[in-house]
Amino acid sequence: MSTTISPLAVPFPALPQIAGVTPRIARAGYKDWGRCDLTYVELDPGTAVAGVFTKNVCCSSEVELGREQVKAGRARALIVNAGNSNAFTGYRGREAVEAIMAQVAGHLGCPPGEVFVSSTGVIGVPLPKDKAYAGVAAALAAAPCSWEEAARTIGTTDTFAKGAGATAIVDGKRVSFAAIIKGSGMIAPDMATMLGYVFTDAAVEPAFLQQCLAAANRETFSCITVDSDTSTSDTVLAFATGRAGNAPLASFDSPGADAFAAALADVCRQLAHLVVRDGEGAQKFIAITVTGAAGDDSARRVGLAIANSPLVKTAIAGEDANWGRVVMAVGKAGEPADRDRLSIGFGGTWAAREGQPLPDYDEAPVAAHLKGREVTIEVDLGLGQGRATVWTCDLTHGYISINADYRS
Amino acid sequence: MSTTISPLAVPFPALPQIAGVTPRIARAGYKDWGRCDLTYVELDPGTAVAGVFTKNVCCSSEVELGREQVKAGRARALIVNAGNSNAFTGYRGREAVEAIMAQVAGHLGCPPGEVFVSSTGVIGVPLPKDKAYAGVAAALAAAPCSWEEAARTIGTTDTFAKGAGATAIVDGKRVSFAAIIKGSGMIAPDMATMLGYVFTDAAVEPAFLQQCLAAANRETFSCITVDSDTSTSDTVLAFATGRAGNAPLASFDSPGADAFAAALADVCRQLAHLVVRDGEGAQKFIAITVTGAAGDDSARRVGLAIANSPLVKTAIAGEDANWGRVVMAVGKAGEPADRDRLSIGFGGTWAAREGQPLPDYDEAPVAAHLKGREVTIEVDLGLGQGRATVWTCDLTHGYISINADYRS
Repeated sequence: MSTTISPLAVPFPALPQIAGVTPRIARAGYKDWGRCDLTYVELDPGTAVAGVFTKNVCCSSEVELGREQVKAGRARALIVNAGNSNAFTGYRGREAVEAIMAQVAGHLGCPPGEVFVSSTGVIGVPLPKDKAYAGVAAALAAAPCSWEEAARTIGTTDTFAKGAGATAIVDGKRVSFAAIIKGSGMIAPDMATMLGYVFTDAAVEPAFLQQCLAAANRETFSCITVDSDTSTSDTVLAFATGRAGNAPLASFDSPGADAFAAALADVCRQLAHLVVRDGEGAQKFIAITVTGAAGDDSARRVGLAIANSPLVKTAIAGEDANWGRVVMAVGKAGEPADRDRLSIGFGGTWAAREGQPLPDYDEAPVAAHLKGREVTIEVDLGLGQGRATVWTCDLTHGYISINADYRS
Repeated sequence: MSTTISPLAVPFPALPQIAGVTPRIARAGYKDWGRCDLTYVELDPGTAVAGVFTKNVCCSSEVELGREQVKAGRARALIVNAGNSNAFTGYRGREAVEAIMAQVAGHLGCPPGEVFVSSTGVIGVPLPKDKAYAGVAAALAAAPCSWEEAARTIGTTDTFAKGAGATAIVDGKRVSFAAIIKGSGMIAPDMATMLGYVFTDAAVEPAFLQQCLAAANRETFSCITVDSDTSTSDTVLAFATGRAGNAPLASFDSPGADAFAAALADVCRQLAHLVVRDGEGAQKFIAITVTGAAGDDSARRVGLAIANSPLVKTAIAGEDANWGRVVMAVGKAGEPADRDRLSIGFGGTWAAREGQPLPDYDEAPVAAHLKGREVTIEVDLGLGQGRATVWTCDLTHGYISINADYRS
């Protein structure tokens, strides 16, 4: 953890215990730092698992293996290494992951494929097997820890610990969610690597859990960006222990399935926002809503083109209602758009409607809005019914300092 | 022009007079600045014209009109307004352009369609017709100016005047090129970018001039990026007066056509590099060569993914041989790539070969290379024969200062 905390940080929330889930932490010493850097979460037998992973084709062995493992739908353990991403390390990297899986599986008496491993940190250095072995052994023997301790331990450049929770009534039973995530901050690794984990005591069939997680991902993690750079290690896993006692959810026809999916999406949205709030150098949290697009996917791509534009992000950093830069970003997105139907606003005030600046545009409320920590940009394309909201942060001197001054 | 000159600036070159081309400048006062901001270039009757334009769908009226005008292939005049892009200004913006075309056409006694207009600067403010009228009138009456004065006058945030020249022997005649360009931010390729103008006294049929310009564009302007943001006004026009006396070039079968095309491409490459050298906040000029790709277009897209990565650009700014960030950018490009065949080098020294860090990697020569102003990155994908070179600059505090502090 960095010592300079993001101005957009929020306190760690009170999270419920999730029956069948026990987190523990230990110090593997992957870097020369005086902190725990290995997280172990033990899961009851029968826990269902689902996952979404980076689309970066240069992904780590952890991601390659995880993608295969989720197909079987069952998990007994999660190990998260912080300080070394083990990406781009060839067969030696893969061997290190398989050694961890075997070690934990031997302890639990389960198949190695039910042990999920994630790593985050510097690229190109094989995970040291001896440090991993000793760290895992220490974690297996450690006392249970809090969610906040686990959240802190999976972090690298993060400036604050990030967690989210929710509850829902499913099939007459109260089900709970606890979730932790790490995003990016100062000083360390190579890129905005995002690792997120959602734990619930709901009973859910793996295929339906995957369906719900994929749907939630489309509207949450896939709608945030800090700097347009896609990590080689991004992973979000959802684990469902079934201890809440509801009849297992198998589809949206199951009683309570809608409530479960909504709660899961809510947790994912909270986690995604927390990552943006810890975006490197972030001073402002920006929500961009695109309406009137040809379709929802088109709206999302237009929103991300705006969110990734360095010129839009620096304008917001400068508290400048520079809607011309938003026009530019809409135009370069490669999606259907018509300059003469385009409307753009900030904080709910339209600056331009249907291709022209508003003659009676009053910049005062917009200027006041832009001085705040939370900024909204509204874009209406005037074409169809598609809509999406994406979230990002501004681009500041802090981002340059973090990434140009850091030595790999 | 900014008062802080790019450390990558080069002196304005000695450029030839081009028979049949006369530049003049005047002050329209589009902004409250004490400098000329309107450029007028008069062209002899019969001058051929070709153009490439931004693909941004929110383009300006100037671009919309220019795209139509080049189809007729003939030009008598060029007007360039600096300080106001006239983009996103609806019918009022279009009227302002048409008024300029009519004013100049009346003076020259030519069809309005032979008067080309470009504008660059703030988006969303209709070009003031009264200032334009007075500025054009002053320019029509002004004495001829130098290429350097014209280059300075078309600039906005540029920190130095940019020009390029070339000569070639075509059909036994010496033909000359003089060219000027402006641009330093909102620079992304995939098309022609910025405002660039090439003048030659060669005799060339418009269709062949367009063919040569489009081919040159693919390897030059479409291979540079400063910030991934694509302007609404990008335009490159080539004008050929025919005064050199060669038999008009109509195809690559015409004598001297190869020499002409090569000289034109050379001029375009010079111009493109000058824009990168004036990239906002640039401290280093970066050439990225991608080999072993599935095809040339794939190589170019991988190169641009690297060149547009904020994490790669900040690493170079920090003189950090962070090849892990290059791996990440290759992986997110969406092009065929195989992590285990990928090789990455800096300044001709491989840091990683075929998916793994080199065990005997000597960072000393790489570190020395990165301290210079000119940096090269070599990427071999190990898949096929495709190759491309793209050019960009680093991402520094200067970029943030320019774009977060600038008020639209």
